[in-house]
Amino acid sequence: MMQKAVIAAIDWGTSSFRFWLLDQAGLPLAEVRSDQGMASLRPEDYGPVLEEALNKSSAPLNMPVLICGMAGSAQGWQSAPYVDLPANLSKLHEAACKIDDIDRDVRILPGLAQRMPERPDVMRGEETLLLGATLAQGVEERTVCLPGTHSKWAQISEGEVKGFGTSMTGEIFSLLATSSTLSHFTEVHQEVAKDPHFVEAVAEGLSSPGDLMQKLFSVRAGPLLFGQQVAEGATARLSGLLIGTEIAAFGKKHEEILLVAAGKLSEAYATALDVAGIKFQQVDAEVLIRAGLRYAASSIWPERFSQ
Amino acid sequence: MMQKAVIAAIDWGTSSFRFWLLDQAGLPLAEVRSDQGMASLRPEDYGPVLEEALNKSSAPLNMPVLICGMAGSAQGWQSAPYVDLPANLSKLHEAACKIDDIDRDVRILPGLAQRMPERPDVMRGEETLLLGATLAQGVEERTVCLPGTHSKWAQISEGEVKGFGTSMTGEIFSLLATSSTLSHFTEVHQEVAKDPHFVEAVAEGLSSPGDLMQKLFSVRAGPLLFGQQVAEGATARLSGLLIGTEIAAFGKKHEEILLVAAGKLSEAYATALDVAGIKFQQVDAEVLIRAGLRYAASSIWPERFSQ
Repeated sequence: MMQKAVIAAIDWGTSSFRFWLLDQAGLPLAEVRSDQGMASLRPEDYGPVLEEALNKSSAPLNMPVLICGMAGSAQGWQSAPYVDLPANLSKLHEAACKIDDIDRDVRILPGLAQRMPERPDVMRGEETLLLGATLAQGVEERTVCLPGTHSKWAQISEGEVKGFGTSMTGEIFSLLATSSTLSHFTEVHQEVAKDPHFVEAVAEGLSSPGDLMQKLFSVRAGPLLFGQQVAEGATARLSGLLIGTEIAAFGKKHEEILLVAAGKLSEAYATALDVAGIKFQQVDAEVLIRAGLRYAASSIWPERFSQ
Repeated sequence: MMQKAVIAAIDWGTSSFRFWLLDQAGLPLAEVRSDQGMASLRPEDYGPVLEEALNKSSAPLNMPVLICGMAGSAQGWQSAPYVDLPANLSKLHEAACKIDDIDRDVRILPGLAQRMPERPDVMRGEETLLLGATLAQGVEERTVCLPGTHSKWAQISEGEVKGFGTSMTGEIFSLLATSSTLSHFTEVHQEVAKDPHFVEAVAEGLSSPGDLMQKLFSVRAGPLLFGQQVAEGATARLSGLLIGTEIAAFGKKHEEILLVAAGKLSEAYATALDVAGIKFQQVDAEVLIRAGLRYAASSIWPERFSQ
């Protein structure tokens, strides 16, 4: 049986552009990746970037396009208003917005908003990944951890997102590791998951999350007082303190969570969840985001998935 | 009675140079201030900066000079090794280092080191201020709070520093307010102490210090969901969350602490300590640092203080 592309699917984030041509089953037949994310684009740049990717991947004419992520924010291509919680993931597509300024059927999925005055929160892109998790992993009742620049922890119940929280873990790590008085001792691209200082620091973050701002200074004071050996573990220590503190705030024992990540980040969180004694199942984010985009597209353009 | 300068005293920090000619009582007869701190100087620059200040202030010939602060660090003029805890403040001067490469009697006071593997910490400059506190304020038993880029909280007992901790509050505030995804909503030089969002956020930080990384994102998500009114309080909210979290880690009720600060920072911490229900006495840092430098100088050069 010949595979045939029925849809173009894009995860268009702050700093990345990930484009796939998908067949009816959601399998990727072509892929284009770049760093042409929202942060580097004006609204009028999105159309040409999209058309270039369609050309590069030899997409058939009139291919419809479904986008998720920051391209749908007020600073993106066109604003796709948030869907409020509790959010039924299987109906995300009903709030998709059609792009006005392009001669092609292009739609952007909405983000989610938690409009609680005491815990306001927003996400864009992760909702599509959560939709994918309910489909690919059969997640009906689960806490999902999506680590990153802004880690998201979402509670899914009965196929709805009931609540979520954001931890600025990755961004704070990056600021401290590159632009602070700690950065003399840290390297951003170091592998941390196997460093014993990482495990030790995760445990410290877990046991006293309220002491984070104090513990962070030990990343500097330790090497000053105890020398080079400690400096080598400084990046691992910084990362461990932050991730341990994050898990203390969001993780719950006696529940298996779904960890959605890849590469080094995935290893670090897997190690940290082990230290915390939290069971988890690990899945790759891109598989889930394609599953989410495929499902939403099949609801928007059912005729393309039924031929 | 004519006042006569007996000593030049300098608080030489990372980003500031504060120079005074002091009389026998420690009163300043002349003052020179600049931003010529450690961060902008090579070792060979310190001598000329010092001589220029002595000239500007018309200091008598052969005036001895006592320095505290980062000029005594390994990256400064000349390293003045740390004194370990417990540290008797009235004997700080015994560990002062004489500068080698200048034709004048110039000495640098040591910093303090807390060599606990689980809580390593260092200070430079604050120890002289703590010495001043034991003299000017008669502090024999007290927790002292020194807010700043790196806030220090020290326990003084029987004239000794028994322990201390550092919170990276000011540095994290500055990084987040100027260089993060929150900075779209924040202004660094805004007055926060009287903003109701500050008081509210201090209370949140105090009650759930372990949720800091999560709460920080609300500084962005709040304005996105609830609009301009909330954005105006974003800087106050950011500052309040951080200061509330700091006080939760270090402050204790049922004890009057000594708050050593000036200006807006002092107002913010005073408000936050009120919210925390912690009693405090407020003193100006410069008065204390001159008292500390004067005392140490009178121990190093007793003849200049007995004429």
